[in-house]
Amino acid sequence: MRTIEWRDGTVVTINQLKLPHETELLRLKNCDEVAEAIKKMKIRGAPLLGAAAAYALALVAYHSKAKEKKRLIRELEEAAEKLRRTRPTGVNLFWAVERILNKAYAFHGNTKELAALVVEEANRIADEDAAANRSIGKYGASLIMDGDVVLTHCNAGALATVEYGTALGVIRAAVEQSKKVRVIATETRPKLQGARLTAYELKRDGISVTLISDTMVGYIMYRRMVNKVVVGADRIVRDAVINKIGTYQIAVLAKEHGIPFYVAAPKSTFDLAHTSAEVTIEERSPEEITCIGSERIAPESIAVLNPAFDVTPLNYVTAVICEDGILYMDDLASLKPARLAQNEQE
Amino acid sequence: MRTIEWRDGTVVTINQLKLPHETELLRLKNCDEVAEAIKKMKIRGAPLLGAAAAYALALVAYHSKAKEKKRLIRELEEAAEKLRRTRPTGVNLFWAVERILNKAYAFHGNTKELAALVVEEANRIADEDAAANRSIGKYGASLIMDGDVVLTHCNAGALATVEYGTALGVIRAAVEQSKKVRVIATETRPKLQGARLTAYELKRDGISVTLISDTMVGYIMYRRMVNKVVVGADRIVRDAVINKIGTYQIAVLAKEHGIPFYVAAPKSTFDLAHTSAEVTIEERSPEEITCIGSERIAPESIAVLNPAFDVTPLNYVTAVICEDGILYMDDLASLKPARLAQNEQE
Repeated sequence: MRTIEWRDGTVVTINQLKLPHETELLRLKNCDEVAEAIKKMKIRGAPLLGAAAAYALALVAYHSKAKEKKRLIRELEEAAEKLRRTRPTGVNLFWAVERILNKAYAFHGNTKELAALVVEEANRIADEDAAANRSIGKYGASLIMDGDVVLTHCNAGALATVEYGTALGVIRAAVEQSKKVRVIATETRPKLQGARLTAYELKRDGISVTLISDTMVGYIMYRRMVNKVVVGADRIVRDAVINKIGTYQIAVLAKEHGIPFYVAAPKSTFDLAHTSAEVTIEERSPEEITCIGSERIAPESIAVLNPAFDVTPLNYVTAVICEDGILYMDDLASLKPARLAQNEQE
Repeated sequence: MRTIEWRDGTVVTINQLKLPHETELLRLKNCDEVAEAIKKMKIRGAPLLGAAAAYALALVAYHSKAKEKKRLIRELEEAAEKLRRTRPTGVNLFWAVERILNKAYAFHGNTKELAALVVEEANRIADEDAAANRSIGKYGASLIMDGDVVLTHCNAGALATVEYGTALGVIRAAVEQSKKVRVIATETRPKLQGARLTAYELKRDGISVTLISDTMVGYIMYRRMVNKVVVGADRIVRDAVINKIGTYQIAVLAKEHGIPFYVAAPKSTFDLAHTSAEVTIEERSPEEITCIGSERIAPESIAVLNPAFDVTPLNYVTAVICEDGILYMDDLASLKPARLAQNEQE
């Protein structure tokens, strides 16, 4: 199955907090349940959050008792606001919400037809994400050579998207081309998406993966045990890639060791109207640092920092791989906000 | 109390695996118990391992039933071999073992007198470590300015030494000079010495400390939230500092951000007869990566790497602070192996 699916007026997805030990399916019935699952990171991954937000609005439209279009639009707007308040940094969620609202605003017809349109648009967003990942994989695989050892951070895999994955989509496509590729996955503290999700999905799919702690990145580069880095992104702005905390230092280390650093992300992650200074970096709960599962690992009431994302200036990025192709530094610098609009309008 | 003490024919120390939740004192009665505690990291920290190894030999000498000096020396040699097999990377343990054996070889007298000499020498090694840390603190504090925010990695504190600490000794001395200093401690996966030990001992002593995950180092440097780095060392060779895994990447990041990177270590950590290529980097159990306490965080039978140390070439090191003063790059390059011998011979 896909990581997220529409089934008879519900949204079915995997509870990613229970992985790798248990595959618990969530059957979400309304927007509040989706918003709560996003806040708690049962659902995570920027492209997946786009699809999840779209489906949350689909749930609102599908189950609405509104008699007038105006009323349904109000309900969608209220739900949109709840969704926007879940997580501030990744842009795909905002992008999907805007796209659905704009469709609704432009629509002329009755509430039943509008509800059907919203569900259809949400499904289209999910389908497009799946297709974008395949395309990213195809372009990205051209950068991966037989015998490469690729380091990845966090989880930019099937579990972070509707299916296939962005960074891991590139790996999958290279493997499908019969290239021998080995992956090194950082565990990605604090939430351990590398240990729990990337290690799990690559192992499940028979792709060679070795897990390391986040402290080992420099050493394995120093020892020449890795020759490429591919990561995903939560938002690509005019001057930087914003991605899971720890990405920036991997980019700096890659540059120091002459290792290419690639970012794989669909155009729904692009936000070229903004710069990194304008983006809110989410600060999450201290318990993510002081506890791991039921295990407390630090003294009581210790001060902590817990930014969930960091900022990698574009000069550390070798190229961005999107569904349209491979964008090198010069391409990135010349990209206009208008480019994103194409995607919104198809 | 000191982190390790000789008490009536036993060695008393803190079980560091139980911190910060419980302060369990270990009362070790023979060399095997000390060796086991070292292997399991109940006792850890390069300078402390030197003192612990010396005391382990003191236990052998003190409890020996040998009637001849030759026999006691054989027992010491056998114990020395066991100690050398505990952990290969830090040099202080090897240094302390050699120092005690050389004292024994040079001694002329009966077994009872030799046993007393070994205990005395072990106590002297511990006393010298305590004094070295105070001296390191004094020199190091001259580098710390009022208002500094200092990042440290792992635990190079009182708990890693006989008392006071190397890197944290520098912080303590600066605080004793009434400088306002704040510390940022990396949690230091996999063994979490930063979260469990550094956060604990600084908080206990009323020194401002903020805990971060190892993924956040680059970001807080990028945000200019830290302006100095001070770490300890497990072995300083002719071309590099060998220290806890994760040190190297912090040094690279510090250089990239123009932040001074200091290493605080006593001369017993110097091994200038060797280069980094000649040092064995300890590879520890996969479970340190796949489990945290009772919590399994990765899929079953996943491949992992777990080097316990890494190699920081001297060009990333601003200076080494030892008990004789501050050694800058040129001083380090011109240091001769003979320098270490002074220390061995007092």
